[in-house]
Amino acid sequence: MKMSDGVEAAIHCVTLLASIPQDAVLSGADLARFHGVSASYLLKHLKALVAADVLVSVSGPKGGYRLARAADRITLLDIVLAVEGGAPAFRCREIRRAGPNPPDATAFPDPCGISVAMLRAERAYRDALARTPISELVREHMDHAADCVLARGAAFLKENLRQQG
Amino acid sequence: MKMSDGVEAAIHCVTLLASIPQDAVLSGADLARFHGVSASYLLKHLKALVAADVLVSVSGPKGGYRLARAADRITLLDIVLAVEGGAPAFRCREIRRAGPNPPDATAFPDPCGISVAMLRAERAYRDALARTPISELVREHMDHAADCVLARGAAFLKENLRQQG
Repeated sequence: MKMSDGVEAAIHCVTLLASIPQDAVLSGADLARFHGVSASYLLKHLKALVAADVLVSVSGPKGGYRLARAADRITLLDIVLAVEGGAPAFRCREIRRAGPNPPDATAFPDPCGISVAMLRAERAYRDALARTPISELVREHMDHAADCVLARGAAFLKENLRQQG
Repeated sequence: MKMSDGVEAAIHCVTLLASIPQDAVLSGADLARFHGVSASYLLKHLKALVAADVLVSVSGPKGGYRLARAADRITLLDIVLAVEGGAPAFRCREIRRAGPNPPDATAFPDPCGISVAMLRAERAYRDALARTPISELVREHMDHAADCVLARGAAFLKENLRQQG
């Protein structure tokens, strides 16, 4: 089971956008360049984040992306669901009803216990993601990253931020 | 993100094998027939369960599969790891080091906070799977399944069990 690489890129983009002023945006091309991924690859995931109301897309020559709401109200779960979709990883095909002499469907009024247990574990996963707001990741980064890493980020933003209004 | 369909089949097989006597086995062909999947498809997953010490394969004309240990010492996590492998769903490609003017690798003594948070959520998922022994699923099934479903399982076992020794 492997998650799309797009999740990592999407989280990094949202985290970077969480550190810019409210009236500014970064272009998709600049977000791609800062993370060393192709712009066309990233565009698909940025669109998914806009569709999920995590980001807002501002059009025009000075357009780009910004957060749709405060970073403490965007969680890792919002981003994972935006990029990966909402379907659970475990998908019950009801094989308990397959095989020889299959009982009538009415013989199974309750969901399969195997499916229930697997989905309970996925709920624990999603709950853990939902407990991690992007603001927490930004704060940890600011508190712990090396000075040269922070300086590189600040220099990139200074050069590429697009002020609106 | 989608888990292999083989996980569902593998859990059902282990659950069925948890309800047979210790000195008996079921053939791979019968396990496949009972769950309505192809024998060649299932064989790959049965082999993975043997490699992970969840099942034992008994060779010979009256051979087949049985549990490698008691059902209360086999968990959903054992089966998921056997079929899906142990790699986490989220795989950090260290894109924080990518892009223009990349800092030296020594600028990143700590693991990326995004990766840490994603793997923490996967740990919650695995912990939940590890808290569910197969014996619990069997007990729930025996307590709640319709009589006709239990009778069908019992008839299938009576016809296809292979006693050893």
